[in-house]
Amino acid sequence: MPTNLSPESPIGVFDSGIGGLTVAASLRRLLPNESILYIGDTARVPYGGKSRETVERYSIEIGNMLLRGGAKMVVVACNTASALGVPRMKEVFGVPVLGVVDPGAQAAVDSTKNKTIGVIGTRATIASGAYEKAIHALEPSATIHSAPCPLLVPLIEEGLIEDSVTDQMLARYLDPLLSKGIDTLVLGCTHYPLLKNAIARIVGPAVSLVDSAENCARAVGLLLTDSGLSSSQKDSGQLEVALTDSAEGFLRTAAKALELPISKISLQSTRA
Amino acid sequence: MPTNLSPESPIGVFDSGIGGLTVAASLRRLLPNESILYIGDTARVPYGGKSRETVERYSIEIGNMLLRGGAKMVVVACNTASALGVPRMKEVFGVPVLGVVDPGAQAAVDSTKNKTIGVIGTRATIASGAYEKAIHALEPSATIHSAPCPLLVPLIEEGLIEDSVTDQMLARYLDPLLSKGIDTLVLGCTHYPLLKNAIARIVGPAVSLVDSAENCARAVGLLLTDSGLSSSQKDSGQLEVALTDSAEGFLRTAAKALELPISKISLQSTRA
Repeated sequence: MPTNLSPESPIGVFDSGIGGLTVAASLRRLLPNESILYIGDTARVPYGGKSRETVERYSIEIGNMLLRGGAKMVVVACNTASALGVPRMKEVFGVPVLGVVDPGAQAAVDSTKNKTIGVIGTRATIASGAYEKAIHALEPSATIHSAPCPLLVPLIEEGLIEDSVTDQMLARYLDPLLSKGIDTLVLGCTHYPLLKNAIARIVGPAVSLVDSAENCARAVGLLLTDSGLSSSQKDSGQLEVALTDSAEGFLRTAAKALELPISKISLQSTRA
Repeated sequence: MPTNLSPESPIGVFDSGIGGLTVAASLRRLLPNESILYIGDTARVPYGGKSRETVERYSIEIGNMLLRGGAKMVVVACNTASALGVPRMKEVFGVPVLGVVDPGAQAAVDSTKNKTIGVIGTRATIASGAYEKAIHALEPSATIHSAPCPLLVPLIEEGLIEDSVTDQMLARYLDPLLSKGIDTLVLGCTHYPLLKNAIARIVGPAVSLVDSAENCARAVGLLLTDSGLSSSQKDSGQLEVALTDSAEGFLRTAAKALELPISKISLQSTRA
């Protein structure tokens, strides 16, 4: 456990795979002074269909790897790990831990006018009820309609971003939510912002999309300021990516789509 | 390492998840005297997009769990682990190890008339070239056309067995192989037999489908007879399933689809 947290240490970002680079990209844009150490658990990806116990264990393991890498805080960019792993991480780790669920819930409450909110995510995220709990804590009178969308991650990872098959699956997943009159839709999985255009086409302009990556980055900025941990090295932030298994293909795709320069890529084992 | 292999010990069957139950079902049908200890590595599923090093390491770990469970042989029901992990398992383990690739290759060579064979599988299986090597070792003049079909496993695990989206993806994957004139198609992933009807509709009656589960079970029967390890307990075989993470939903779906009674289900950790 680190005892001397330094503002010049990197922000640790943890994801089950590569999808959390959407959060890293938002952090780089919003906080250009900050360096990022990103670990993607590609050896055990995806988390979205796994049990709470397993996701919790993996979250602690990857969090410890970030702390050994000198992270001054841990950002859990994966919605599944945020929903299932963050409570235990907050108990165990001696640095601030922030998931994507609370910032996403706050943004949804800020956005909705009719207090009818849709949430989409992996099977594990939706089953956890984490967004419902977080939204109801902020706005008890909100009505929430949620839907697991288990095929979206594989479709995105295969690069079917603008594709008729993806559009058909989106319509199946989203039509039942639209029929309930939602005016806000939380994209409760870090991969989903890559489908923002396709989703917007299906839900139409009357439904606001809440992108957890963007809101999480804003919350990280506030937390760093509040805790005196903001870096003062102007625009000198770097992004270092470590993966637990090689996943070069999708890493290149995502980095290109996000226009995200990566200064170093390495392979790390979870057997430490 | 076991020193006293007994014919009354169970056959160990290893898969990355639940798909290998197709092999277990074929074994139960063909070898009713044999008991089966099945371990599905659902905590780290899927293997199909992971690297050789990682798949090899997982294969050794799960193989060791089967040996601790008293297995008299190890059947690798997962095509990805067969393609990437079996060579090393054969070096390390003191019991017979059999994968699905060699039996599938033999069946493809027996089936083809025009020596033009198609192979479909996960990204890792196809990239390994394992089927090409195994088929060419038996029939050097065969022409092989292969295609990775990474979305089929997620579609099957979501239960979209008879579904327009699955049919569209199958057509995209298979049309290029059909245009090459294949007369035999190897279903090089243990999940794919669950799509046999949909695949048969698309490829038509002129293309023979090679189901690796069925052929693997026949090879296991021969190997047990040859090595004097066949059980003599008439029709008393049981199936015990252990998973590294809970996956009750798909387990129930698969067991029902395969009409496969399971005598015991348990959860086992890979951290032994």
